[in-house]
Amino acid sequence: MRPIHILNGPNLNRLGLREPDIYGQDTLDDIEARCAAKLGRRGELVFRQTNSEGDLVTFIHEAEDAGADVIINAGAYTHTSVAVMDALKMVSGRVIELHLSNTHRREAFRHQSYVSLVADGVIMGFGAQGYLLAIEALIAD
Amino acid sequence: MRPIHILNGPNLNRLGLREPDIYGQDTLDDIEARCAAKLGRRGELVFRQTNSEGDLVTFIHEAEDAGADVIINAGAYTHTSVAVMDALKMVSGRVIELHLSNTHRREAFRHQSYVSLVADGVIMGFGAQGYLLAIEALIAD
Amino acid sequence: MRPIHILNGPNLNRLGLREPDIYGQDTLDDIEARCAAKLGRRGELVFRQTNSEGDLVTFIHEAEDAGADVIINAGAYTHTSVAVMDALKMVSGRVIELHLSNTHRREAFRHQSYVSLVADGVIMGFGAQGYLLAIEALIAD
Amino acid sequence: MRPIHILNGPNLNRLGLREPDIYGQDTLDDIEARCAAKLGRRGELVFRQTNSEGDLVTFIHEAEDAGADVIINAGAYTHTSVAVMDALKMVSGRVIELHLSNTHRREAFRHQSYVSLVADGVIMGFGAQGYLLAIEALIAD
Amino acid sequence: MRPIHILNGPNLNRLGLREPDIYGQDTLDDIEARCAAKLGRRGELVFRQTNSEGDLVTFIHEAEDAGADVIINAGAYTHTSVAVMDALKMVSGRVIELHLSNTHRREAFRHQSYVSLVADGVIMGFGAQGYLLAIEALIAD
Amino acid sequence: MRPIHILNGPNLNRLGLREPDIYGQDTLDDIEARCAAKLGRRGELVFRQTNSEGDLVTFIHEAEDAGADVIINAGAYTHTSVAVMDALKMVSGRVIELHLSNTHRREAFRHQSYVSLVADGVIMGFGAQGYLLAIEALIAD
Amino acid sequence: MRPIHILNGPNLNRLGLREPDIYGQDTLDDIEARCAAKLGRRGELVFRQTNSEGDLVTFIHEAEDAGADVIINAGAYTHTSVAVMDALKMVSGRVIELHLSNTHRREAFRHQSYVSLVADGVIMGFGAQGYLLAIEALIAD
Amino acid sequence: MRPIHILNGPNLNRLGLREPDIYGQDTLDDIEARCAAKLGRRGELVFRQTNSEGDLVTFIHEAEDAGADVIINAGAYTHTSVAVMDALKMVSGRVIELHLSNTHRREAFRHQSYVSLVADGVIMGFGAQGYLLAIEALIAD
Amino acid sequence: MRPIHILNGPNLNRLGLREPDIYGQDTLDDIEARCAAKLGRRGELVFRQTNSEGDLVTFIHEAEDAGADVIINAGAYTHTSVAVMDALKMVSGRVIELHLSNTHRREAFRHQSYVSLVADGVIMGFGAQGYLLAIEALIAD
Amino acid sequence: MRPIHILNGPNLNRLGLREPDIYGQDTLDDIEARCAAKLGRRGELVFRQTNSEGDLVTFIHEAEDAGADVIINAGAYTHTSVAVMDALKMVSGRVIELHLSNTHRREAFRHQSYVSLVADGVIMGFGAQGYLLAIEALIAD
Amino acid sequence: MRPIHILNGPNLNRLGLREPDIYGQDTLDDIEARCAAKLGRRGELVFRQTNSEGDLVTFIHEAEDAGADVIINAGAYTHTSVAVMDALKMVSGRVIELHLSNTHRREAFRHQSYVSLVADGVIMGFGAQGYLLAIEALIAD
Amino acid sequence: MRPIHILNGPNLNRLGLREPDIYGQDTLDDIEARCAAKLGRRGELVFRQTNSEGDLVTFIHEAEDAGADVIINAGAYTHTSVAVMDALKMVSGRVIELHLSNTHRREAFRHQSYVSLVADGVIMGFGAQGYLLAIEALIAD
Repeated sequence: MRPIHILNGPNLNRLGLREPDIYGQDTLDDIEARCAAKLGRRGELVFRQTNSEGDLVTFIHEAEDAGADVIINAGAYTHTSVAVMDALKMVSGRVIELHLSNTHRREAFRHQSYVSLVADGVIMGFGAQGYLLAIEALIAD
Repeated sequence: MRPIHILNGPNLNRLGLREPDIYGQDTLDDIEARCAAKLGRRGELVFRQTNSEGDLVTFIHEAEDAGADVIINAGAYTHTSVAVMDALKMVSGRVIELHLSNTHRREAFRHQSYVSLVADGVIMGFGAQGYLLAIEALIAD
Repeated sequence: MRPIHILNGPNLNRLGLREPDIYGQDTLDDIEARCAAKLGRRGELVFRQTNSEGDLVTFIHEAEDAGADVIINAGAYTHTSVAVMDALKMVSGRVIELHLSNTHRREAFRHQSYVSLVADGVIMGFGAQGYLLAIEALIAD
Repeated sequence: MRPIHILNGPNLNRLGLREPDIYGQDTLDDIEARCAAKLGRRGELVFRQTNSEGDLVTFIHEAEDAGADVIINAGAYTHTSVAVMDALKMVSGRVIELHLSNTHRREAFRHQSYVSLVADGVIMGFGAQGYLLAIEALIAD
Repeated sequence: MRPIHILNGPNLNRLGLREPDIYGQDTLDDIEARCAAKLGRRGELVFRQTNSEGDLVTFIHEAEDAGADVIINAGAYTHTSVAVMDALKMVSGRVIELHLSNTHRREAFRHQSYVSLVADGVIMGFGAQGYLLAIEALIAD
Repeated sequence: MRPIHILNGPNLNRLGLREPDIYGQDTLDDIEARCAAKLGRRGELVFRQTNSEGDLVTFIHEAEDAGADVIINAGAYTHTSVAVMDALKMVSGRVIELHLSNTHRREAFRHQSYVSLVADGVIMGFGAQGYLLAIEALIAD
Repeated sequence: MRPIHILNGPNLNRLGLREPDIYGQDTLDDIEARCAAKLGRRGELVFRQTNSEGDLVTFIHEAEDAGADVIINAGAYTHTSVAVMDALKMVSGRVIELHLSNTHRREAFRHQSYVSLVADGVIMGFGAQGYLLAIEALIAD
Repeated sequence: MRPIHILNGPNLNRLGLREPDIYGQDTLDDIEARCAAKLGRRGELVFRQTNSEGDLVTFIHEAEDAGADVIINAGAYTHTSVAVMDALKMVSGRVIELHLSNTHRREAFRHQSYVSLVADGVIMGFGAQGYLLAIEALIAD
Repeated sequence: MRPIHILNGPNLNRLGLREPDIYGQDTLDDIEARCAAKLGRRGELVFRQTNSEGDLVTFIHEAEDAGADVIINAGAYTHTSVAVMDALKMVSGRVIELHLSNTHRREAFRHQSYVSLVADGVIMGFGAQGYLLAIEALIAD
Repeated sequence: MRPIHILNGPNLNRLGLREPDIYGQDTLDDIEARCAAKLGRRGELVFRQTNSEGDLVTFIHEAEDAGADVIINAGAYTHTSVAVMDALKMVSGRVIELHLSNTHRREAFRHQSYVSLVADGVIMGFGAQGYLLAIEALIAD
Repeated sequence: MRPIHILNGPNLNRLGLREPDIYGQDTLDDIEARCAAKLGRRGELVFRQTNSEGDLVTFIHEAEDAGADVIINAGAYTHTSVAVMDALKMVSGRVIELHLSNTHRREAFRHQSYVSLVADGVIMGFGAQGYLLAIEALIAD
Repeated sequence: MRPIHILNGPNLNRLGLREPDIYGQDTLDDIEARCAAKLGRRGELVFRQTNSEGDLVTFIHEAEDAGADVIINAGAYTHTSVAVMDALKMVSGRVIELHLSNTHRREAFRHQSYVSLVADGVIMGFGAQGYLLAIEALIAD
């Protein structure tokens, strides 16, 4: 089984600290722990966060170098970053786009996703549970 | 646990018969069987398909009358039906929007979804497996 | 005096059951009763509802065959149905477009009305009372 | 019962003099007389017209100071005046938007109404009769 | 030679009864008779009409099951139905889009055709004669 | 010969005082004098200016009451006033739209003219001379 | 019977030489021969091609001077030439717009046709056969 | 030091009377008093309000005649008045655009400002305090 | 005085022959004669027409080589030709744009003029008289 | 009193070195010094600059952790960064958007500000003085 | 080595005569001489110019018949000619799009290039030197 | 001669490793070597790459501090970064925009380039050879 790299974008380091009505009360550490528990010994998990678009591009390169499948919650870069999209296009493994909230129920500029244009699958609106569903999808595949 | 109504829209009765490169080789009967197996005895499953927008509206009313959660693959009505959206808004249970393919990688007119404007969660691009992930989301909730 | 056909579109069968803050607490049966009382013996009243766009088209054909004036609350089909508009264009009598709420205060996609493009008059935002005003308009004419 | 202020915008002082095929043959004085007759002694009626956007704003302020419900036929300012809209937002009573013709069957720039964004109800396309229907709506309420 | 299914959409059952200046004086029955005469014994003809979008989708499925070429006058659904387009994409035979009038000379919303996006050929503006030209095209092919 | 009413809109009272590179050095009084000299005894001339949209509407009504042809430089109201357009539509005589500068070489929002939609002729970009050309057009007609 | 002028626009002189997968293998000479054979002695045929927009305008003038019906495949000028459209408006005979391919299945800028705005009928997507169908339409008329 | 003319547009005479959650509880008289106190004897203050677009244009002319700097809260005319913009362009002194609320957090049609296109500086979202900041900017300059 | 080159674009050679309700009954020869009479011996007149965009570009070059002022009625190329606009930008003399009809009262695609972006003055809607007004403007200048 | 974090985005480190006609001659160090002098001992000042969008996001997080009010000149990220907007939404203190120039008088893509959608107040067009006005606003509050 | 056809569009015959600040002082003859010198005996050079869109299409056909690579400066036709684009698509050799100026720094309607949609390479903004770089690219290939 | 700084944006570090059909098989190191060979001892070469938008801004500042000409392949930031554009505007030397592929033949969002708005010249679609052409342009200048 391929390693799984879960890559998180800007502001997700603040998860659980602010706006819990939109994003829930879990912190990113909580989510990482639940992902690790879900995956167990079935595969390798890399779980990273950055506020930098450039670093997110680099993380994707490194995921590809590791031969990984990618679960990406690109946060705001979802809607603005062609660079992230270009990096994801080079990934040989599966790419799953993830959002905690259903972005289509928010502002109009969040309805466009550069990530969606290259992702294999999309899961949004399930809060932290979405991460587990994405892992489930990769395991079951 | 609430019953689960899985509602399928136009042309999905042809699944597995045409364009398997886009939608896979499973028929809708195959998918219903896998859904039933997944859910097992944990809850009641209603699995329906129609080519009619009006019938789909009525199916949603009936799901609500049954106190059900709804998994809806509205097919082409996803992009054109305000009537389906209005019906879904009246559902008290959870609403999960499902698509076999990642609609954002297809024609521009498939990027808009009236269903997304009212769904709690969205799962797309996982083929028939997406139905199972949606059931997983409702079970695990 | 011409007969009056009052035709109601999708989801209006759920009136009074859901979202009373938007649409009020009257059921469609309540409204029909108030319309009949208002009209009294001055004319014939046909009052119908359907969730199907095709049936709504047919109802309009039948209204025309009956030589009727039409009061139409096309619900969501107001915004999406060219077929309903085409049918209404063939009506010899008066056509009054009706909405319970003021659709211009709701989502942008509800601001466009195909029905308005062919209706003689429009009444919206008066709740169930709007039906009575529309009948008043036809009686007084 | 609250007083009723009926406020008319630009060019409506020419009613009945020009373009009777669009607007009918009643003059504004005729309409005022029919409104007064309709209302009778049930309430106070103020009926005003102005070609000035600023005066129309002031008339609305005065209607509010009088504790009135407002029936407004803002004419061309319907489509261009944010100032009129802002004034109407401050009205505590009911606001009914009125047009003699069905503006949706005319030029595209008449399809947008700033007044509709704040009105409680809209009545259009009934000619002079529309004024009476609007009074009916306020009486019956 | 493949069978020919000629499928007609909403309001076409009223042909010849209304608006003869746009659509001509032939009824749909007249057109069916002329089509049958044109085709003669060279092939099988199925000629159907429905006001329902869902039924039109089903008719297309049935045409495909019959191994037929399709001539479709989808009426107003031409401009609004992705479902019809999706059904037509699955047709193995030829698909000819037909309109009695030249839709490009009518309202702007009739300039877009979902059917055109998947049809092999388009014939419009020839009135009832267009049906015969379409059959000619299939015969001569 | 019909009287000629030359109606000038907002800020034109400042002509010759500001921005001479765009509008020239003539004041509005200079222009009125040149117009009177041009017309001579051949007809009656009324020459007016206002900063108020409502007054401009009224001036047009009065021009119509006088049976006049209208030369209108509506200034900024050219681009924003449907009310002025509606008033001009009621003018029985000829309506000539006039601008000192070529508005198409200025900001994009000056490219749209409501006045152009109802004017018989348009003259722009000739500075004060344009007024004389417009009178010439009415005389020679 | 009126003469038939078949007018062909830019690049059609290269037909059959390039891109046969889109346009087929017939040369324009082949098509002319098939048209002549189809028409036989029933009428006069003029068949012309030019790469120049101005010449195409002149060809249309000459067709009108000859009292002809026009079949026009304006090629790329279909999408860009108001001049061709203006010329076609002056044609007293029938005007049939023709395209070898279904232009609606190609780039978005080929979806707009100035020719369609004035043509009586449109035939597209039938390759060289389309020319014969157009002649059929004129003969049978 | 130049005089300061503070010019207020439509509906601002109602300040403090309605919608205090958006605009605060200060009346326009309160604000004038605070401005006078802030400026003290350092310069002349003219503080005016009007509901009329034409009057606002004239006020700007008068400010320019007085050699003043201008602080303008044009209210709704901010978004619709090219006439006000044209008048402001002729002001030799500084022009500061002021809004009580942050208009970018309100409806989309309030995001466009004709005043911004010619103002030197913009201050918005500070309520009544914004007037004092604008005076501060002119004093300190 | 500079020579005057009057350049006419596509379809204007058909003037007076077709659509007299839009363009009047004068032929282009009539107009040339009236222009020559108007100008008399005060200057040299060149009067040309072409259906070809390229020739129109060349005519403009030749006008510039002759040191002429240009009156141009570019017909349909007004709305589509950047090449004509580029040529006009190189003209040292005055450039007057001319149209027989008021193009703003016709189809939307005639509202944009590339010629207007570089012309000094614009005259439209005066029929053949417009040519004389344009000459008047150049003489009087 | 809360600490004040003044955060500066890309290219502001070059202030005073380039394009002084747009941005003035002060360097960012000069501005920091003037801000410190303005604030004096009344509160804590943090003054930072970065070219990195990700760092700007992190600076905002740190401002929030310090319980600060934020004055932000996000430079070009104003117009492109949803990530910065999302970070600012989490700030409990006041957020003031600042620009040296009036961005509405520059290119169209600078008219949209993601920062404005979440800022409490906006100050632009006052050059370096704008920073002092922003501090004034926070002090006086 | 393939022959090189350098094809120049409208107004380029005026190069060096007008607007040298935009296009430089070289005439087209100068450029041809420099191109010939650059290429020397390494290959055949054809260097042509025309103001006619149709001729430019024909030149491209002739280049293809000669088995040439094409360097094309289509001038204004770059932005308006689908016919030129269609002709270029049939070229078997390389196609290099060339502009003297950087068209993206000019008017918005020059930002769209039909030529770019089919060219292999694009060189713009280098003045006459760009021609030499294009030849260099073909030689070095 | 000025130094040459060649600055490369996101994902270009992966060149030659992925998608060789679009970008060719050269790695960025290969290209640097070829550039150095091309330039030889004629000038100083700095060749850099970064995935970070902020770093790219800083690289441009440093190029300007070194008095360099800039060749920039901004990758995806071409289409999204106003910050990069703002930095490039401050460069005193020449700025050449470079792309390996012809971005106009790819997705629509790659047709807009902020870099083009400030670059002196643009070279795209020549693969690695484009770098050499850009150096050639700077040497030959």
